[in-house]
Amino acid sequence: MITLHTWTTPNGRKPIILLEELAVPYTIVPVDLGQREQFEPAFLAISPNNKIPALVDDEAAGAPLTMFESGAILTYLAEKHGRLLPAAGAERYRVLTWLHWQIGGVGPMFGQLGFFAKQDDAFAIDHFVKEAERLLGVLDKQLSTGPYLAGAGYSIADIAVYPWIVAATERLGPQLGATLAGKAALQRWLKLVGERPAVGKAMAWSAG
Amino acid sequence: MITLHTWTTPNGRKPIILLEELAVPYTIVPVDLGQREQFEPAFLAISPNNKIPALVDDEAAGAPLTMFESGAILTYLAEKHGRLLPAAGAERYRVLTWLHWQIGGVGPMFGQLGFFAKQDDAFAIDHFVKEAERLLGVLDKQLSTGPYLAGAGYSIADIAVYPWIVAATERLGPQLGATLAGKAALQRWLKLVGERPAVGKAMAWSAG
Ligand SMILES: N[C@@H](CCC(=O)N[C@@H](CS)C(=O)NCC(=O)O)C(=O)O
Ligand SMILES: N[C@@H](CCC(=O)N[C@@H](CS)C(=O)NCC(=O)O)C(=O)O
Repeated sequence: MITLHTWTTPNGRKPIILLEELAVPYTIVPVDLGQREQFEPAFLAISPNNKIPALVDDEAAGAPLTMFESGAILTYLAEKHGRLLPAAGAERYRVLTWLHWQIGGVGPMFGQLGFFAKQDDAFAIDHFVKEAERLLGVLDKQLSTGPYLAGAGYSIADIAVYPWIVAATERLGPQLGATLAGKAALQRWLKLVGERPAVGKAMAWSAG
Repeated sequence: MITLHTWTTPNGRKPIILLEELAVPYTIVPVDLGQREQFEPAFLAISPNNKIPALVDDEAAGAPLTMFESGAILTYLAEKHGRLLPAAGAERYRVLTWLHWQIGGVGPMFGQLGFFAKQDDAFAIDHFVKEAERLLGVLDKQLSTGPYLAGAGYSIADIAVYPWIVAATERLGPQLGATLAGKAALQRWLKLVGERPAVGKAMAWSAG
């Protein structure tokens, strides 16, 4: 059985989307970030970087598996079930390229914008708004070349990016609203991905 | 033949380290970030996120392959040559976990520290110094459990992290020097990895 330690944040929802797409059984252990549960020793033993999501698979091939980092978790589950990440060829590496683009770009930059938006630091806010707008421009341009982020097929790259764009729409609205509204390919993709039942279920998940 | 579009930065050196370890032929096309060459149309056609490194492999299985994002590039090369990333099992996913930890954590956070260190923004500098110190603590703790980042074997996770720690030692010295000096496991690993000939060669690479 797979146990997912997670919370109601963009990074936390990614593996829920994938588990729902794969229709495999799993249990969620909520890690309440508001209560600083990510610093409890039992959680740190699984996720020494004190961040969700983390995953334990006690039926993994060989021995029980413990891992963290959402991009690595998505890759593990996709490889285990042979879905949403091609096993070889150019499309595999397009998916991994855009997955890493989310992990190294959208995630930390939108995350820092979220942090500084609550601070009195106009210089930093402006810096991260500009970077977020640049990233949204890159995303819109890529999505104008095909239905999904890595081309013809829905993949873990779409799953990684989607909850962050929803979060940007909802929470970073004042700063990024106009930028988002003007991007036709991005809007089309948001609708396309958002209509998937697995995505709807994962985005609606709440801990309580 | 593999063509690597890169520059003399931490992210830029990672694929050079791996190509040297693999001892496969490759050509480097320098992308001078100081001259803003990452914004030239020919480069953007390969790397639409205007960042190095990017890779073109015109002998890839099937069709020529173009990709960017250092973590994806390391994964591609390791899988192509069957080295430095186990093909399956717990160790594969430990490597991917720590690779993603570098891509989503060390890279962007050290990068932002480097950016703000040159600005007059004490609040942001303090924020990113604290985050960098936290990450160095996580790294030191992990390295106290085994010789390499993902356990017994040298892997693409070590390759991804190493140039960033060297950069922190050299360029973020005033802020992070004391933190780095006090970490025994990290110092042991820096020496161990730094002594590899492939690492020495890649760290010494210059564009001119
Ligand atoms: N690169 C990581 C980032 C994970 C992350 O930032 N998680 C946040 C919530 S979205 C967290 O757990 N924050 C708590 C903390 O840092 O103390 C991933 O993709 O899994
Ligand atoms: N997540 C990316 C980050 C790449 C990155 O930040 N590259 C920097 C140099 S280390 C760059 O090209 N910067 C130029 C720019 O952003 O305009 C990766 O790991 O490849």
